[in-house]
Amino acid sequence: MSAPALTGRGSFLLTNVGELTTNVAVEGDPCGTVLDAAVLVRDGRVAWAGPREEIPDAAARGAGEQIEVVDAGGRAVIPGFVDSHTHLVFGGDRAEEFAARMAGERYAAGGIRTTVAATRAASDDDLRERLRALVAEGRAQGTTTLEIKTGYGLDVGTETRLARLAAEVTDEVTFLGAHVVAPEFAGRADEYVDLVVGAMLDAVAPHARWVDVFCETGAFSPAQSRRVLEAGRAQGLGIRVHGNQLGYGDGAALAVSLGAAAVDHCTFLSDDDVAALAASDTVATLLPGVEFSTRQPYPDARRLLDAGATVALASDCNPGSSFTSSMPLMIALAVREMGMTPAEAVWAATAGGARALRRTDVGVIEPGARADLVLLDAPSRVHLAYRPGVPLVRRVWKDGVES
Amino acid sequence: MSAPALTGRGSFLLTNVGELTTNVAVEGDPCGTVLDAAVLVRDGRVAWAGPREEIPDAAARGAGEQIEVVDAGGRAVIPGFVDSHTHLVFGGDRAEEFAARMAGERYAAGGIRTTVAATRAASDDDLRERLRALVAEGRAQGTTTLEIKTGYGLDVGTETRLARLAAEVTDEVTFLGAHVVAPEFAGRADEYVDLVVGAMLDAVAPHARWVDVFCETGAFSPAQSRRVLEAGRAQGLGIRVHGNQLGYGDGAALAVSLGAAAVDHCTFLSDDDVAALAASDTVATLLPGVEFSTRQPYPDARRLLDAGATVALASDCNPGSSFTSSMPLMIALAVREMGMTPAEAVWAATAGGARALRRTDVGVIEPGARADLVLLDAPSRVHLAYRPGVPLVRRVWKDGVES
Repeated sequence: MSAPALTGRGSFLLTNVGELTTNVAVEGDPCGTVLDAAVLVRDGRVAWAGPREEIPDAAARGAGEQIEVVDAGGRAVIPGFVDSHTHLVFGGDRAEEFAARMAGERYAAGGIRTTVAATRAASDDDLRERLRALVAEGRAQGTTTLEIKTGYGLDVGTETRLARLAAEVTDEVTFLGAHVVAPEFAGRADEYVDLVVGAMLDAVAPHARWVDVFCETGAFSPAQSRRVLEAGRAQGLGIRVHGNQLGYGDGAALAVSLGAAAVDHCTFLSDDDVAALAASDTVATLLPGVEFSTRQPYPDARRLLDAGATVALASDCNPGSSFTSSMPLMIALAVREMGMTPAEAVWAATAGGARALRRTDVGVIEPGARADLVLLDAPSRVHLAYRPGVPLVRRVWKDGVES
Repeated sequence: MSAPALTGRGSFLLTNVGELTTNVAVEGDPCGTVLDAAVLVRDGRVAWAGPREEIPDAAARGAGEQIEVVDAGGRAVIPGFVDSHTHLVFGGDRAEEFAARMAGERYAAGGIRTTVAATRAASDDDLRERLRALVAEGRAQGTTTLEIKTGYGLDVGTETRLARLAAEVTDEVTFLGAHVVAPEFAGRADEYVDLVVGAMLDAVAPHARWVDVFCETGAFSPAQSRRVLEAGRAQGLGIRVHGNQLGYGDGAALAVSLGAAAVDHCTFLSDDDVAALAASDTVATLLPGVEFSTRQPYPDARRLLDAGATVALASDCNPGSSFTSSMPLMIALAVREMGMTPAEAVWAATAGGARALRRTDVGVIEPGARADLVLLDAPSRVHLAYRPGVPLVRRVWKDGVES
């Protein structure tokens, strides 16, 4: 290997990494852990990753003047978090609803309408300011890839506006016109679905990569959900589903039958659902922030993993049921409450999220991948669960550039 | 009121505070909440706090040149957290034990001995470096007053060393020689207690304000615990107790009978314990980080509050059962798991901690109190529970000086 040109932005050697999580699976270790490791980054991509003593050439070892060397001080490095389920474009907040729920009121999907009213009333600038603040907040906690859904507009103009704003900060925009039935269509869900699969989809699809639907009692029926997803697919969108959050239902089965990239929530799954997920390419995305903030029982990640399903963790950051952007907390909750090991939880929050977005360039540290790296203020990824609530993310690079 | 001289370090006017939690109780609001508020700080102490429109004179309104004005931007301000139960002086960590426990092993107090070995082997410099890093970590999350215990030495020399190191960073040092029986005294607990109440106490007491004991099956019996506490009291130390963590027991009753400032854990309380606490000045300090990290059931804060007991929240930051310094997470857990309202939890993490340390100068924002202030990146203290895991602490002042 000839001496690389490492003068540009997005090029450096990260060395003295005590524990590197590559997510390049090896026998017995899906996290592809390398101790005393280094990562060579060139032009925003990973050029090489491996044991420090095998750094490929003299320049990369830092002997040349042109290379920036970053010393990790023996700390742990993981791929940037891939948060595959968020709702970051909205107006207002629902702190009072939260406090009331904690005092005993039950979570109901209808609360979404509160945010719909605030979102419709908000200016683009207000929405953008909030959105960018939340993206920055997530980035500071290690999130380098974000999916963002529409779904607080529920009319053609506002849904389009939300998709445009989301597209300013991510390529992973999801059309969720079918979040709940718009208030103007109360009692006329099928007519609302006509709008969603018609003019609304036409307007939003150019800004989106995915279509999603909330398939749940109180939101959309399986038949309505199928209509929405098939219409989105016909316009070239990939499929994702909200399902099985508040009770048993058809969301997971529908997702698998349509080849969805992911079905999200999965709090209430039948044995058949688990078996179907395990036999499919559909990722089960678990959102423990929702169970935390709605005081619901947590999904059983262990059951899914033991059956062979692929599990992702995401924040579901939204102002109603999970107003957290903290992927480290999702990991801690997954370990405390859902039967995951720390390694499984970290994998699910990085590689799992990437699978849920059908991405191979993120959630992994290998040659060619985006140089999305998180340096922890800890010797091991285990500390993300062992030290709950502590801001352990010390440095973050996205595309090789530090945030 | 004449124009104050506000030129010095530790003097400023904090204004445009959207929601100020003073903890100066008013009818129906123990948090003494003031909306659209300001706080005048002079020489590290609170000089005045109240509605912004009532700022006492022209200079304080920022008209004069000599006053530094800090604009809170409508955000919430609370007193700095008073973390009244930590074990921050130790060597090593126990990440592997944590991971094993999450895979199904049960927490046992004996794991403390692992840390004892690492602590005895550590140099003062190593212990100091870790200690200071943890203090800084807590400060960044809003903790401005910390109690720190010895208890990982268990011999005269090391316990003294730990007390000296703790005293470098706090006035609230607690002698916990009776944490577990030292390994050299295995099976000879009474002989170990002889040492604790004899040479060890003599050596440590000059550095400490408090004496504490772990009154629990597997640690010290009620009779042994009483000996330790009475001996400490005879040397002028205040009393605190670890009790009722792993099962029902005599810790709480003993604490009340001796007029302890606090009994900490209180996970398993009888009706008599609750009644005794409610009728006493002994604070029930709840440590939900322990239940989180040991997967134990949470204490029932609601039951204590409804009975009229005073409740504090603390981190119990230690490498075995709760390696978190995050008071915001304690608040979020108290709301999610222990039946507290957000206001009760914030009070318990500030004023409650102050009561548990018998301090009147912290945990409150009123004239004469230390200017220990936390500016949240949120419009309300409710967000500490509503936004779990998110680092919401934006700025921290201790004694009027920003950290």
